[in-house]
Amino acid sequence: MTDSLRFAARMESIKASEIRELLKLTERPDMISFAGGLPNPKLFPVQALESLSARVIRDCGRQALQYAATEGYGPLRDKIARRMNRKLDVNVTAANLLITSGSQQGLDLTGKAFLDEGDVVLCESPSYLGAIQAFTPYRPTFIEVDTDSDGMNPDHLRQLLQTVRNVKLIYVVPDFQNPTGRCWSRERRERLVRLADEFNVIVVEDHPYGDLRFEGEPQPSVLSFDREGRVVHLGTFSKTFCPGYRIGWTAASPEVLNKYVLLKQATDLHTSNVGQRVIDSYLEENDLENDIAAITDVYRRQRDVMFESLAEHMPEGVSYEKPSGGLFAWVELPEGMDARKLLVRSLEENVAFVPGGAFYPNGGRENAMRLNFSTMDEPRIREGIRRLAGVVRAAAAGIGSGA
Amino acid sequence: MTDSLRFAARMESIKASEIRELLKLTERPDMISFAGGLPNPKLFPVQALESLSARVIRDCGRQALQYAATEGYGPLRDKIARRMNRKLDVNVTAANLLITSGSQQGLDLTGKAFLDEGDVVLCESPSYLGAIQAFTPYRPTFIEVDTDSDGMNPDHLRQLLQTVRNVKLIYVVPDFQNPTGRCWSRERRERLVRLADEFNVIVVEDHPYGDLRFEGEPQPSVLSFDREGRVVHLGTFSKTFCPGYRIGWTAASPEVLNKYVLLKQATDLHTSNVGQRVIDSYLEENDLENDIAAITDVYRRQRDVMFESLAEHMPEGVSYEKPSGGLFAWVELPEGMDARKLLVRSLEENVAFVPGGAFYPNGGRENAMRLNFSTMDEPRIREGIRRLAGVVRAAAAGIGSGA
Repeated sequence: MTDSLRFAARMESIKASEIRELLKLTERPDMISFAGGLPNPKLFPVQALESLSARVIRDCGRQALQYAATEGYGPLRDKIARRMNRKLDVNVTAANLLITSGSQQGLDLTGKAFLDEGDVVLCESPSYLGAIQAFTPYRPTFIEVDTDSDGMNPDHLRQLLQTVRNVKLIYVVPDFQNPTGRCWSRERRERLVRLADEFNVIVVEDHPYGDLRFEGEPQPSVLSFDREGRVVHLGTFSKTFCPGYRIGWTAASPEVLNKYVLLKQATDLHTSNVGQRVIDSYLEENDLENDIAAITDVYRRQRDVMFESLAEHMPEGVSYEKPSGGLFAWVELPEGMDARKLLVRSLEENVAFVPGGAFYPNGGRENAMRLNFSTMDEPRIREGIRRLAGVVRAAAAGIGSGA
Repeated sequence: MTDSLRFAARMESIKASEIRELLKLTERPDMISFAGGLPNPKLFPVQALESLSARVIRDCGRQALQYAATEGYGPLRDKIARRMNRKLDVNVTAANLLITSGSQQGLDLTGKAFLDEGDVVLCESPSYLGAIQAFTPYRPTFIEVDTDSDGMNPDHLRQLLQTVRNVKLIYVVPDFQNPTGRCWSRERRERLVRLADEFNVIVVEDHPYGDLRFEGEPQPSVLSFDREGRVVHLGTFSKTFCPGYRIGWTAASPEVLNKYVLLKQATDLHTSNVGQRVIDSYLEENDLENDIAAITDVYRRQRDVMFESLAEHMPEGVSYEKPSGGLFAWVELPEGMDARKLLVRSLEENVAFVPGGAFYPNGGRENAMRLNFSTMDEPRIREGIRRLAGVVRAAAAGIGSGA
């Protein structure tokens, strides 16, 4: 008879997601899935990578296949720094950059570096599920800040900073947020950083979608307003290039970055050197901005098709804002409608999505859905929204009839 | 004026290693470095990997470059399971295996899953620095168990388990340990597992060097004695294939492994899918056991040269045991000699090593050195040991003279 194993106390909050279990069904080929957050694999530069992969091994295999520096491959860090300076109106160098295993690892290192049990993380309402999961093992309390289409409400943010003890981090996805697709105004970005300075709180700017803008002018990054080294900026190649190499980065002040480097060294030594060099060679010889223009053309069209279909099929009482970038549509359902229950019925129709409740760290809101528009082709988007609207209509009729 | 940033309390114990700073000098090309723990890059199968890398992208680029399952690539997990069953006398399947970013990540996930602040980790004396670093952020207390050339002293281990509260983990490197090169006897392995069962403690068997045996019969793995799911076994391709892809694995009972999978998902989603598929293809078409035979032939010869040179040049009072595998020689210096001070003088002679004190989690022992023999060619090993012995002789003369 085995005594029960004694896991760490933090494991009490780490649970398998029932939603994730349900969504394993979405791998069936007949499924119309709006559930994932994946880039469209048709857009990966497979041909270029075929020859580059071989060349990196041929030209520098003995270095690329050996252990390497924790900070990451120098030439790649230089390229990322130059690109950030050009696009984000910042002034960083390789010394501000740590290559991570996807930007998800930047979230984990952030939790490890900053969060004591009981510390408070302020986040948008709703917020990115993966960040909630990354921070949870460090046992913070999440408090949601009121959020509208311009970003966090700065008055509510100030009020929380004034009244809540132990606020350590403010976590935001200012560009085309996951799950809502919203993009913060310039003013809200600047006020966020000034409040962080006033209350000595770290801001984590998670920036996976900033390059995927379909129209309008880019907003300055939150990092661009940072004067005192309180903003940690997370980037990734997963949405603009491909996720399979797991290459992301963390940009921060040297004081913060040095801590992350020590933690990363103890966590996994370094990120795949081969992957870093392949991406570095790709960037050397290709224009990523051209690629991104092609990607955003495809996603813009897919977004338009999804929103045309929503307008055509969804019943009254269902609302949504068309995002100007990113991968996601956020659909709010009438009060009282439970998207988890809708998902079960929707899967019977071979249509998948993520119920909105998953994105509220403290739960309590179930009448929303996150729909991804980047992976399905246009006919499937149309058909999927048609079927999904049917499920919503049936549920609305049930609510309307008091059932 | 910036208020000072408020890091988590755990960061108080995370310090940059002064040794590591000193050893940055070892990258100079004229340095004879016995400091690293690197495999010899001349032994990497560069040519095979050149064409394989391209082929993986060509044949399955859209899958390989996309997000993938946290558990790892199924065919690779199957191959690792079959190989473990064949070589380690165990009975595991893919369901027992999680692919990690090197085996270092297995150590981090172990700390995250099991260690609360103040929990006790029992380890060999001395123990692997990277494991100490991986566990430290979870704030355990390390207690060293008396160790001889057969492994941990089981009487001391039992006494500690009986008297110390909160022992959560026993961490061991039973085959050709880093730093001592020692290999545990079969009897000690079995007794370790029986004691772990009796006291309901997890055993972590770190197994990076087990395949690098130069002579003698392999000992059964600690995992092979596990009947109750208390052994977590960590493996890696870093020493037998190459480290650059960062592919390792954790084998454990499904109960433990499921927790690790949830943690890994929140930590970095998954390990590079491209790297996993390249290694899988390599294993499909090549005989890793042949490669390992070639690698061990080289390392055996390098070890022999190092020990011949030690015997020729080191003064009396310096002791060492010839390891029957692995990458390291452990050299004990006369009492009172400080290997950190020796390192400074040795670097002046362009010879580097790691002072033994780094491997005692609670410090207090400075009269030992870890010497790596896998990366330098034979003439440099001879020359390096000759110079190093000169430094030791000079220090011994200093001690002898009361200076």
